This record gives sequence, C-alpha cells and structure tokens, in this order.
Amino acid sequence: MTETLLSSATREVVIGFDRPFVVIGERINPTGRPRLAEELRAGNFDTVVADAVAQVEAGAHMLDVNAGVPLADEPALLAEAIRRVQAVTDVPLCIDSSIVAALEAGLAAYEGKALVNSVTGEEERLESVLPLVARHGAAVVGITNDETGISEDPDVRFEVARTIVERAADHGIPREDVVIDPLVMPIGAMASAGRQVFRIVRRLREELRVNTTCGASNISFGLPNRHALNAAFLPMAIASGLTSAITSPLHPEVRAAIQAADVLMGHDAHCAAWIAAHGGEGPMQPQRGRRGGREGRRRAAAP
Amino acid sequence: MTETLLSSATREVVIGFDRPFVVIGERINPTGRPRLAEELRAGNFDTVVADAVAQVEAGAHMLDVNAGVPLADEPALLAEAIRRVQAVTDVPLCIDSSIVAALEAGLAAYEGKALVNSVTGEEERLESVLPLVARHGAAVVGITNDETGISEDPDVRFEVARTIVERAADHGIPREDVVIDPLVMPIGAMASAGRQVFRIVRRLREELRVNTTCGASNISFGLPNRHALNAAFLPMAIASGLTSAITSPLHPEVRAAIQAADVLMGHDAHCAAWIAAHGGEGPMQPQRGRRGGREGRRRAAAP
Repeated sequence: MTETLLSSATREVVIGFDRPFVVIGERINPTGRPRLAEELRAGNFDTVVADAVAQVEAGAHMLDVNAGVPLADEPALLAEAIRRVQAVTDVPLCIDSSIVAALEAGLAAYEGKALVNSVTGEEERLESVLPLVARHGAAVVGITNDETGISEDPDVRFEVARTIVERAADHGIPREDVVIDPLVMPIGAMASAGRQVFRIVRRLREELRVNTTCGASNISFGLPNRHALNAAFLPMAIASGLTSAITSPLHPEVRAAIQAADVLMGHDAHCAAWIAAHGGEGPMQPQRGRRGGREGRRRAAAP
Repeated sequence: MTETLLSSATREVVIGFDRPFVVIGERINPTGRPRLAEELRAGNFDTVVADAVAQVEAGAHMLDVNAGVPLADEPALLAEAIRRVQAVTDVPLCIDSSIVAALEAGLAAYEGKALVNSVTGEEERLESVLPLVARHGAAVVGITNDETGISEDPDVRFEVARTIVERAADHGIPREDVVIDPLVMPIGAMASAGRQVFRIVRRLREELRVNTTCGASNISFGLPNRHALNAAFLPMAIASGLTSAITSPLHPEVRAAIQAADVLMGHDAHCAAWIAAHGGEGPMQPQRGRRGGREGRRRAAAP
C-alpha cells in the first residue's frame, strides 16, 4: 500500500492504492488556449481563478497550474497564478512547468505540500528538479522518458520509472512521494497506446509499488467523440492500477466514469457517493442478482 | 492466443484475445419479463423474433436464447425459439438453459456450431452437459461455481474453472471451446465484486488461456444509473482480459463503451469502426499530442 499525501494550507489529499481515484484538474494551462496565454501575458488572472473554482465545483481533488507562456516571465507568472488559485480554493496543487526556475518560484509561493510536475529520466532534469523537490519536502511526478526519448516499449518506460524512483531516494525523497506518469500517447496515432499504459501501470503498481498519474485526455487526441473515449480509457487504466490523472472534471461522462470506477474498485463505501450523485435509495440486497436469480428459478423449474 | 469459433448456417464469429469484443445479446430471456413468459407459454414467439432483430441491428454479434418458463415444456419451447431466431438472423446463438433436455433439444434444432450456456463445476452437471456438447461439436460456457456454491475468493473460482477445462478435455472438448464465466455479483451487495472479476479474468487469460464471458449487467443490480455503471464495468473487465459478455447492445452508453474499449485495446484497426460510428474524418497525425506538445513548446520557451 502506497499513499502520497499532498496538502494546501488547510486540506490534505491522499493518492493511494486503496483510495478513491484522485482527479487533478487540467484546465489551468495556456497550451492550446491562446486567449488564456494572452491574458497571462497581460497579467490578467481572471480565467485562471474562474477555471480553478469551476473545476473544484465539478469535483477536482487537486488542480494542475501551468503558466507556460512563450517569451513571458514564467517564474513570476507561475508564482502569481499559484497565489491567486490558493486564494480561492483549498485543494492541493500540482505545480507544472518544464522550467526549473518556474518550479522554484512556484514552490516558494505555495502553501502546503505540492506535487511538482515534473521530472523526467534525463540526467540534467533529475539533478536539477529532485534537489528542489527534496528541499521543499514536496512530491514529484516522474515522466517515463529520458535522453533517448519516449520508448514505444512499456518495459523500457518502466525501467526509466525505476531510475527516477531510485534517484529520488538518493536525494532523500521517499518512494511514496514519486508519482509516475507512464506517458499516454494518442491511440489514433499508435494502436498499442492503450495496452502500453495498462501494462506499465500494472507493473508500476505491483513491482515498483508507486502511485501513478497521466494526462488522460491525450489518449483521444484527433478522434471524434473524445469524451466517450476518455470515459472508457480512465476506468480501464484504473482497473490496471492507475491512482490519479490530470484530466478534466468538467465533462459529465468523464466524471460519471470515474465515479463508477471508484464503485467498481470497491472504493466507494456502500456506493454512497454513487447514490448521492445518481439518485436512488440505496442498494437493494439482491439474491445473487440476475444470473443467480435465473439459476434459482431454473432449478425450481427443473424436473 | 485462444480463438473460439462459433457459427450459424452461414456466418462465423470468433471470440479471441486479439479480436474485437464479442457482444452476446441478453434480451431473449423470460426471467424477470413476465409478459415474455406469458407469450412463450402461449406459444407466441413475436417478442423473441423482435428482440432478435433489434439486438442484431444494435450490433450484437451473437444472441443468447433462453426459454426458461416455469412449468412449461422448456425443451420444446427452446427448440422452437431457436428455429424462429435462426429464421430471421444469421448470428450464431448461445443456447441457454439449466435443463439438460432443453439444451439437447436446442442443439438438435440448431444449425451451426452453438455456444451451450452452461455447465458448472458440479459433478452431475459436468457429466450430463459435457457429453452433449462433445456429441454436437459445440462450445460451452463454464460457470465457476460447484457443489459448495459460489466462492467469494476469486482464486477458488479459478480452480473451478480449471476443473471444468480439464474435464472438458477428458470428453474431447478442446480448451478453446470452453468459455469461462467468472460469475459477476452485484457490486451493491459485495464491494469486492468488481475486483474479483478483474482478478479471475486476468488469471483465466494468462494462466488457463481461455476465453471468458459474463452476465455483465448483473454488476449494477439494485443501483441507480445502471447503464453508466455497466458502461464503466465492461471496459475495466476488457482491460483485464474479458473477451465476450452476455449483455444488452441496446443502450447507447454501453455500446459506445464497448466500441471505445475495442479502440483502446488496439482491436479497431485505424479506429475505423469508431470513426464510422462517431463521425469525424479519421485520426489526425499529432506530434505526440498534448503532453508532448506542451513539452515541445516549453522547451522552445526555456532559456
């Protein structure tokens, strides 16, 4: 059992094998959102604040905050975005940048124990990000690519994960504070992308015993009816052992799929959250349900 | 790789590890449908015929046919139901009864290679059903309970499955013609019901190398918003290795979930079936998608 504890000033969230799935809201990210990028460049955080509130209202347990605007002062923007988000919500945050100085500024501004997104298996990243994570007592997302790129072999990606976990330990970061991202490729470009994730997630859980996260929406990139694909992908990944995802809680299909997966993993005691969200008066106590019922009736009818 | 070939007079369907998921329509069953039971008792097969056509139109690859009406002549009813269904559809059928004489009458009436539903691990069932299956060159569903009932321990159910496969071999029925049903319990009555199925299905695939089926809708018995639970359960079971299910193809959410699971398992070449069903002009060829895109842009912006 591995539990990753994250916190804000006043609230804790635990990512864990025997816990409800943790949804990390993906929206606060200017990539592919030119209007948000423009706002951030102008020092306007209105959309950031609105996205924070909307995602938490929709059920996000944590929020990813990325302020990666080209040619802007990303460290200052990220720190300010974090302050603004922490002023309006109390969920723990995921501090998201590929610029070490921005991660550092974000961590300095953050109140609580953050999840740093991310380190890779690249030597230079390991040695620049991990000391920072250790100094702040944070947790870190480890992405399973290295200098050679992203392997299409899930077992190679697993070995990158092992390297990250071992190197983190060298820096005093315990295994439970490393959350591995197996890298989700678009299934439209690579037919094995789903099976790769399911396989590596299972190995990460059973062999490396670490929590996992991923940019789940990536799986459906370029295909029609993306929400329906995302809504099937997440339960499949959860059944394989995935314990959190950076995704959108704003789509009802995706939200219902995650709630259902919690029920089906036995992580929604007495189905209480399901029943609260979907109506009904509590589970009936069936006599073994339909198959059993049929068998029972058949036997009664048998000569 | 295990492939179970079923056929009607003119069409073949293969259940297999590297194949699209096989949907066996569950509707032709009077259990819990008193009006259908009354019709059958009166020798009226109108609903049977209508249900057959509707399920095949909705995408069922096979149909389960059950005529278990208490105190009726089930062998005669089942044989006639099979003749009527084979007259209007060409999908292979699953001949469903707990009465051996009804299975025998159904097999005698059937044209093609049927799936017999079912045998259990009970000694008396093994020795009455398996010889019949062997004589007709059919395939058989093996249900993982025995004289001691249904174990809550998936590893005990796995051992019942092993017994059925071994005994089938003694009767000359090859492993690929035994499709194991791990027994799906209602999650509202047993919080571990989902995990039990995922575990046993994985073992059945990896260790016993058999195809699997289940009465999938049973998982949501007694709970609200059943279709949403079923639509999450099937992809989770498919990710664990399930290769077919007796379920309803008539609900759009469930149908979309199964189509999505085929895409995500890499069993929908070029996502062609998905795109045909859900619109769009084919997968775009992304540059590693969102995560990758973000990384790329970040690097460009890095100092």
